[in-house]
Amino acid sequence: MKRDEYYMRFAIELAKAGIGQTSPNPVVGAVVVKNGEIVGFGAHLKAGEPHAEVHALCMAGEKAKDADVYVTLEPCSHYGKTPPCADLLIETGVKRVIIATTDPNPLVAGKGIAKLRQAGIEVDVGILKQEADELNQVFFHYIATKTPFVTLKYASSLDGKIATKTGESKWITSEAARRDVHRYRHLHDAILVGVNTVIADNPSLTVRHVEGGKNPIRIILDTHLRTPLDANVVNDGEAETWIVVGSGVKEEKIAQYSGKHVQIIKMNQPKIVIDELLKVLGEKQVTSLFVEGGAEVHGSFIEAKAVNQVIAYIAPKVIGGKDAPAPIGGSGFAQMADVMNLKIKSVETIGPDLKIVALPITDEKDEE
Amino acid sequence: MKRDEYYMRFAIELAKAGIGQTSPNPVVGAVVVKNGEIVGFGAHLKAGEPHAEVHALCMAGEKAKDADVYVTLEPCSHYGKTPPCADLLIETGVKRVIIATTDPNPLVAGKGIAKLRQAGIEVDVGILKQEADELNQVFFHYIATKTPFVTLKYASSLDGKIATKTGESKWITSEAARRDVHRYRHLHDAILVGVNTVIADNPSLTVRHVEGGKNPIRIILDTHLRTPLDANVVNDGEAETWIVVGSGVKEEKIAQYSGKHVQIIKMNQPKIVIDELLKVLGEKQVTSLFVEGGAEVHGSFIEAKAVNQVIAYIAPKVIGGKDAPAPIGGSGFAQMADVMNLKIKSVETIGPDLKIVALPITDEKDEE
Repeated sequence: MKRDEYYMRFAIELAKAGIGQTSPNPVVGAVVVKNGEIVGFGAHLKAGEPHAEVHALCMAGEKAKDADVYVTLEPCSHYGKTPPCADLLIETGVKRVIIATTDPNPLVAGKGIAKLRQAGIEVDVGILKQEADELNQVFFHYIATKTPFVTLKYASSLDGKIATKTGESKWITSEAARRDVHRYRHLHDAILVGVNTVIADNPSLTVRHVEGGKNPIRIILDTHLRTPLDANVVNDGEAETWIVVGSGVKEEKIAQYSGKHVQIIKMNQPKIVIDELLKVLGEKQVTSLFVEGGAEVHGSFIEAKAVNQVIAYIAPKVIGGKDAPAPIGGSGFAQMADVMNLKIKSVETIGPDLKIVALPITDEKDEE
Repeated sequence: MKRDEYYMRFAIELAKAGIGQTSPNPVVGAVVVKNGEIVGFGAHLKAGEPHAEVHALCMAGEKAKDADVYVTLEPCSHYGKTPPCADLLIETGVKRVIIATTDPNPLVAGKGIAKLRQAGIEVDVGILKQEADELNQVFFHYIATKTPFVTLKYASSLDGKIATKTGESKWITSEAARRDVHRYRHLHDAILVGVNTVIADNPSLTVRHVEGGKNPIRIILDTHLRTPLDANVVNDGEAETWIVVGSGVKEEKIAQYSGKHVQIIKMNQPKIVIDELLKVLGEKQVTSLFVEGGAEVHGSFIEAKAVNQVIAYIAPKVIGGKDAPAPIGGSGFAQMADVMNLKIKSVETIGPDLKIVALPITDEKDEE
C-alpha cells in the first residue's frame, strides 16, 4: 500500500503540470511501473491532445505488458476526441490498474473500471482519493452542476475593511499579494466584477505579472447597462468581454456597443439572478469563475450561496470606522444560524499579508 | 556563542514560569554554569520575593564561585524590596555574567552592568535580546511610558463582522477560541469594556475555564454613568470594578453607587480622553489592559493610536451586509496614509478559527 501511495503521489505531481491549461478537461497524471521500476509516465496537457495514460504507455513501450498503471482519474471508456484509454490499457495487456478517484462524467462514471475488470485486469480504486479530487475540484463541480466553480476573492484590512470611509483603497495589500491575484486570474476561465467597479476604477482585468499568463474572459454584471463606452474593458480588445444585463435594457441602448469588443448577454429577468447567470455561463463552457467584487456583487453571490471557495487577502492594517466599506455588501444574513459556514483550507503569508483560503461546509461529512 | 545561546534559552524558559504573576515586576530567569555543567537556576516568581539570581546562586551554593551566570535581564543595582543582585554576584565571586537585555527601569538602566564591570567581572550583553525583550514587553512599556500596555481583542467573521445586522453574535468563534480569551484575561491587570457592552450583555468579565485563574480589575468606560445598578459587574463582587465617567456626571448620581462594589473614576474632561485615561490607570499601577470592546471603544483606542497589540480571532464564516457591525467603530481613518500599520507576530489555528496577533509598526526599524 505504501508503494501504491508513492507512485500515486508522483502521478498527482505529474497531473499538476496541466493545471490551468486542460479546460474543459480534467488534469490527469499516469505512471507505469514494472518489477518495481518506473518505466513510463505522462500527463494530460491540453484538451484534444493525448490523455495521460497514452503518454505513459507510449513511454513504457513493450515494458507496459504485465505492468502496473497508476492513474489519478478513472480511465475513459468512451470515444471523445481520442479513443478510450480503458481499451488501450486492455490491448496493451497491463496487469493491474490503480486509480485515485472515479470520473463523475456520466459518460465514464464507473464504466471505465467495469471495462477493465471485465477484461481480467486487477483494479484498485481510492488511493489518495482526496488529493486527486482536489486537483480537479473545478472539473468535478462543473461536470456535476453544469455551472462554473465560483471563487470569491477580496483584500481587506485586519478589521475587515476594503477601503477607508472616503473610498481610498490603494493599496491595502502588498504588491506580492496583488501579484498572487494575477496568478488566479490566469487559472480561471472567466473573471467577474460589478459595473460600479468598472465605473470607479476602469480596470483592464487582464493578467499581468505572470509569465505567459492567459487572459480570462471578462464579465461585467451591469443590470442597467451603465458600462462606459470608453471603458478599458470595452475598447482594449485584450480579452473577451461579456456584459450581463437585465431584461429591461432596451435594444437601442445595446446597439451602442455593437462596434465594440464586447458581447451583451441579456438575462430573462429585470434583475440579474445569480443562479440563472451561472447556468448561462455553464452553457457557454465557463468552468471556473473568479469573482473580484465589489462588495455588492460579493453580497449577491454570498446570499445566493453560490460560492465554492473564498480567498481572502488580509493586510495587517486597521482602517476602522462605521462607514468604511466591508468586503461583503448586500443585506447580509440576519441570524447566526443562517450565515455561510466555511472551513479553512490554508493560511499562508504573502509578504506582510495573510492569504486565507476557505471552503463552504456543504454537508455533514465535511464537518469534523 | 552557541553555548551562550543554549543556556540563555533555558533561562528564558525559566523566566516564563513567572508570566502573569510578577506584576508590577518583570519576569526574569537565571542559570549558573561551572565547567560546562549547570549548577544552579532560578526565576523571579512574585513581587517582593527573591529575584532570579538569588534563587540560582542559592541553588549553586559554593559552586557559584568563578561560575558563569546567565540572566535574562540586567541584574538590579538598587535596594528595592530585596538587596541589589549586582552586589550579590560580586560578593559570590562569579567570573562572568551574560545578560540578554538591559533593564529600562531608570533605577537600573546600565548601572547594574557598570557595577559588575567595575568589580572586574566579565559582562556580555545582548544574547537572545529580542526574545528576552518580548518576555517583558508589558513591563518595559510600563516603565518607559508609565501607562499600561494595551491589547485590543476582538472576534469577527472572515468578512470582518462582529454580529449580524440584527445584532446577533452568539457565537461567531468556537468555544476553544473563547476559552483562549479567558487565558488572556487572567494574564492582564485589568480588562476594559464600554458601557454599551454592559447594558447589552450584562457580562461578568471574570476568568472562567482557566484553572486557578485570577480575575483582572474590570473597567467600564461610561461617560454619562449609565451602568445599570443591577449589572453583574456592579454587584457580584467577583473582582474590583472601576467605572470611568466624564467630568459632567453629577455627584448625586455617583452617590447611587456608593453601597456597591465599585469605584467611580471621574475624568477631568466631559468626554473620556484615552490618553488621559491611560495616564490615570498607570498611576493606579495598571501595567496591562485588555480591551474587549465594543466597536466604539475599539475605535477610540485605535484613533488615539493607543494600542500596543491586536489579537483578532477570525471565524471561517461569512455574515455579510452593509449594516452588520465591524470590529472597529468610530469614524475610522480617512486616508490610507493614516491607517494603523501592523506586522503579524503570529497566526495560530484554534479549533476551526484563526488567532492573529499583530503589533503596531512604531518606527522605521520595525519595518523590514
